[in-house]
Amino acid sequence: MKLLRYGDVGSEIPGLLDSEDQIRSLVGVVPDLAGDVLSDESLEKIRKLDFGKLPLVEPNVRLGPCVAGTSKVIGIGLNYADHAAETGAEIPTEPVIFMKATTSISGPNDHIEIPRGSEKTDWEVELGVVIGKKAKYVSEQDALSHVAGYCVVNDVSERAFQLERCGLWDKGKSCDTFSPLGPWLVTRDEIGDPQDLRLWLEVDGHRYQNGSTSTMVFGVQTLVSYVSQFMTLLPGDVITTGTPPGVGMGQNPKVFLKPGQTVRLGITGLGEQEQQTVAAK
Amino acid sequence: MKLLRYGDVGSEIPGLLDSEDQIRSLVGVVPDLAGDVLSDESLEKIRKLDFGKLPLVEPNVRLGPCVAGTSKVIGIGLNYADHAAETGAEIPTEPVIFMKATTSISGPNDHIEIPRGSEKTDWEVELGVVIGKKAKYVSEQDALSHVAGYCVVNDVSERAFQLERCGLWDKGKSCDTFSPLGPWLVTRDEIGDPQDLRLWLEVDGHRYQNGSTSTMVFGVQTLVSYVSQFMTLLPGDVITTGTPPGVGMGQNPKVFLKPGQTVRLGITGLGEQEQQTVAAK
Repeated sequence: MKLLRYGDVGSEIPGLLDSEDQIRSLVGVVPDLAGDVLSDESLEKIRKLDFGKLPLVEPNVRLGPCVAGTSKVIGIGLNYADHAAETGAEIPTEPVIFMKATTSISGPNDHIEIPRGSEKTDWEVELGVVIGKKAKYVSEQDALSHVAGYCVVNDVSERAFQLERCGLWDKGKSCDTFSPLGPWLVTRDEIGDPQDLRLWLEVDGHRYQNGSTSTMVFGVQTLVSYVSQFMTLLPGDVITTGTPPGVGMGQNPKVFLKPGQTVRLGITGLGEQEQQTVAAK
Repeated sequence: MKLLRYGDVGSEIPGLLDSEDQIRSLVGVVPDLAGDVLSDESLEKIRKLDFGKLPLVEPNVRLGPCVAGTSKVIGIGLNYADHAAETGAEIPTEPVIFMKATTSISGPNDHIEIPRGSEKTDWEVELGVVIGKKAKYVSEQDALSHVAGYCVVNDVSERAFQLERCGLWDKGKSCDTFSPLGPWLVTRDEIGDPQDLRLWLEVDGHRYQNGSTSTMVFGVQTLVSYVSQFMTLLPGDVITTGTPPGVGMGQNPKVFLKPGQTVRLGITGLGEQEQQTVAAK
């Protein structure tokens, strides 16, 4: 099932994609794609609806972030062996955790704002894991039962803010519009093996990233269990699981985003995002 | 004005402290101490109420975190010159930013859970700055007008998780109960100079921390403006501004918390917290 949120920024309405890829509204069915609505039981109820009877939504509506009520966005660093190599970092022996402010969340096709003073805004296509059930000290075996589904994330990163400004990574990961989520929250039953998905990213038509979740250092099960040892994950929380090679700082010479560019990215079965870059006001 | 939240975990009711230090309820007056309620205009309306007509609350009620709707807790690292020295770190040339998961927020007198596998849980008394008005790219001059008030924060930290587990600091800062906030949100008009407050912390009656916000490397105005260059601050967000010397990892030999201890801490004009340490279940 492909769930989504549509409408104006901050007043999005829940919906889904029917078998003919038309958007149907879930208004009046669920309050939003947040909290308990993301539980297995609730998703099963939605799955059993007659989608043909749900109101049709015009196809060109704006899509918002595909999940709401997110209390935290957890990033995993250097989680693809070949990406670690391109940044000159060692492969970590356990997952590297950072955080992205929830104010960085945006819709999948919203503009990316290049922050004031930025010269090194970079891209990262990533598999996002959306939590469906509270997780604290969960085992790897039980981990996937706490996952509602998956989505595309662009883990936009300002490399100078992240690495050269006397701080920890969060500073370069949390700017407004740095976490486009969506287009869809695809429930986990639709994704057979999360460790066998292709992911790609292009800037102005040039393909920079082309990878597979099969080369992750730590897989989804391990990550959900691991993070839950350090903090409680709530429904709607997102773990963004790291990026394959091909980021801007890995190019020779390095390449970074400027206003006026187009970024496209996608993951098998999870849809595509397209963002225009603009200067932050 | 001293605002507070009382009642059971997750269903706290807003209230305030009257001139005789009695708790009065704000039920029916404001929905919670969150969002727009933290604006100057809204706080002024509360200030003009006849507190004697607000319902009295029994004095021994549980206090919750003194602010709600917090989208992020921003930590500032190594922000007291003498604390940087005790940890062996250089004084930073610009503020060090990390994040604490909002799931780490707890009431001022709630138990501190020592996480599973923890051997290095440590304390940090800190001045918390509560945002009252959205802040993006604000100047130092305007910064304080975005502040609703101040509170005591214990920035509880697991040093091995923070520094020895292959990650960034967030991993050791985000465990449940690691951010007691309160007892009160003291509005900024009551705090003349936030850079002239004494802060202290004791464990089992032994005073370990005894400092003054006058020795901060970066003051409150600078911090609010600085953080707002990297992310948008929303009403209810908390910046916890660093700790003076005397943390456990700064002792010789080092001292860390074990279950069954009592931590007390306070800041001039902002009240006191008292926590018992227990093992996480």
